[in-house]
Amino acid sequence: MSAATPAMIAVDWGTTNFRAFLLSQSGEILDRVFARSGLQNIRGQKFEELLMKETLSWRNAHKNLPILMSGMVGSRKAWLEVPYLECPVELNQFGHHLSAVGERANQWIVPGVSVARDNASFDVMRGEEVQILGTVDPASNDSRLICLPGTHSKWALVEDGKISNFKTYMTGELFVVLRKYSILGHLMTSAKPDDQGFAQGYAWGKRPESFLSQIFQTRTQVLAGNLSPKAADSFLSGLLISEEIKAGLSDIEVPNKSITIIANPRIAQQYAKCLAEYDIEAVVMNSDEVTTKGLFQVAQQAKLV
Amino acid sequence: MSAATPAMIAVDWGTTNFRAFLLSQSGEILDRVFARSGLQNIRGQKFEELLMKETLSWRNAHKNLPILMSGMVGSRKAWLEVPYLECPVELNQFGHHLSAVGERANQWIVPGVSVARDNASFDVMRGEEVQILGTVDPASNDSRLICLPGTHSKWALVEDGKISNFKTYMTGELFVVLRKYSILGHLMTSAKPDDQGFAQGYAWGKRPESFLSQIFQTRTQVLAGNLSPKAADSFLSGLLISEEIKAGLSDIEVPNKSITIIANPRIAQQYAKCLAEYDIEAVVMNSDEVTTKGLFQVAQQAKLV
Repeated sequence: MSAATPAMIAVDWGTTNFRAFLLSQSGEILDRVFARSGLQNIRGQKFEELLMKETLSWRNAHKNLPILMSGMVGSRKAWLEVPYLECPVELNQFGHHLSAVGERANQWIVPGVSVARDNASFDVMRGEEVQILGTVDPASNDSRLICLPGTHSKWALVEDGKISNFKTYMTGELFVVLRKYSILGHLMTSAKPDDQGFAQGYAWGKRPESFLSQIFQTRTQVLAGNLSPKAADSFLSGLLISEEIKAGLSDIEVPNKSITIIANPRIAQQYAKCLAEYDIEAVVMNSDEVTTKGLFQVAQQAKLV
Repeated sequence: MSAATPAMIAVDWGTTNFRAFLLSQSGEILDRVFARSGLQNIRGQKFEELLMKETLSWRNAHKNLPILMSGMVGSRKAWLEVPYLECPVELNQFGHHLSAVGERANQWIVPGVSVARDNASFDVMRGEEVQILGTVDPASNDSRLICLPGTHSKWALVEDGKISNFKTYMTGELFVVLRKYSILGHLMTSAKPDDQGFAQGYAWGKRPESFLSQIFQTRTQVLAGNLSPKAADSFLSGLLISEEIKAGLSDIEVPNKSITIIANPRIAQQYAKCLAEYDIEAVVMNSDEVTTKGLFQVAQQAKLV
């Protein structure tokens, strides 16, 4: 079999998006499908039908491809609630804990990861564990902090080949609901990125004041004439990312003064610039790439490929 | 004229609600109208038409009643943007800064209040200034901290008959958008107040962690089995109020270990109980009562009554 022969379908199925990848025997991306069919957009529709529809041409051309899925598709009230593995979680163990799902054979969901702390604080991830796996060199036991900005940003610590701890920040979702549904959106006139607005918001977020009062400055700084309405959107984004970085750095110690960031280039660049202020180097990795690398490794662990 | 003769119409017109009161020559409430015609609910409709409609029977029975309005009706993109008075603001000066509005004579909007701080932080209120006035004994120069829980909670300091400082916390609005539009609402099965859930959330909010991670516990504590889905709504409420009180007490010094709270009885009781943990006494006042007292005083200042 050549390296380009399709060997599996890897699916990252989250709250907002559905992303599927046709992977070769060596894990290369041969083809990809993207749909806005995240959990919040498909209420009432059947998961399996949607999956079949989106991957139909691949499955017609290549019979019996295993399908490996990660993300919120395995959460409560989604397709099938699959259990969490509890931290510390060995990165090489995911493949031994897959849940079969649906009517067809050879369809699997990867477990999520949870962490329970002494102070009763509890955290969960679904999908990010696969991306984390995809960033790590299996030959290395180095400690590494991995930041995954998004709807629910995760900051995860990998030590000795295990996810040892992580924390969730609702940065992305707060940004969306505040911009879309709160008074803070009323004065915004543009969603176009504005570097100066972002920097202004970022500086505000570094202040030690409460988040509840800080966010209101998105409105009042416009009213005071200190912030342009077209930059207010970026101001709020900068404020939230500032708060996340401040919290993340105080919650989890950064090994080696370096953080791996998994995000699209624009967001990754914003985080990198902000982290530089704390004298921390950012290593940026592409989201699709680490997702497919991670799912391919899980498939190998499970001997599906 | 007897005390029961109608002398004016007082209107509190905010983001969510429209409340109008027919007041007597001595400021008593003779009648009242309530409508869900806050600014966010009346897009496209004409302010004056709505005001006329809601007060028609009063105006038919009693000609030429002055109408005095406070609240977001005087904000940008509302009926008429009226200027803010800048802190420190003399409470006996509002009546000298009314803005006439609309086609009919004798219709006025009370100015809002703003505060600009050395660190460029800027805050605004519209409507609360009138309620603050309504809580204060004109014969007293005591310092007093007044807390107005709500969509945008205000903590305001009154000293020497002036509003000297205040701060805004987006507690109520955050609660609504998170419950209604974020993942935190997904696991909630009841909006019925749950004392234990509130206390749990309140205890979480007192922790020094970031708000961005704390709110996610509304979901994860349910997933962990530590919180009942029917108590999750109250958990989030307790968490947010906890954060507000923690922030308010750190932002503004409390004179006389006592705070005046203007809110409905249930919310006031929640705040009072929480403040007691900080050894602070709560003096609860009724919202409609202080609104009408305040607007009546402003009308007296302006010699409208």
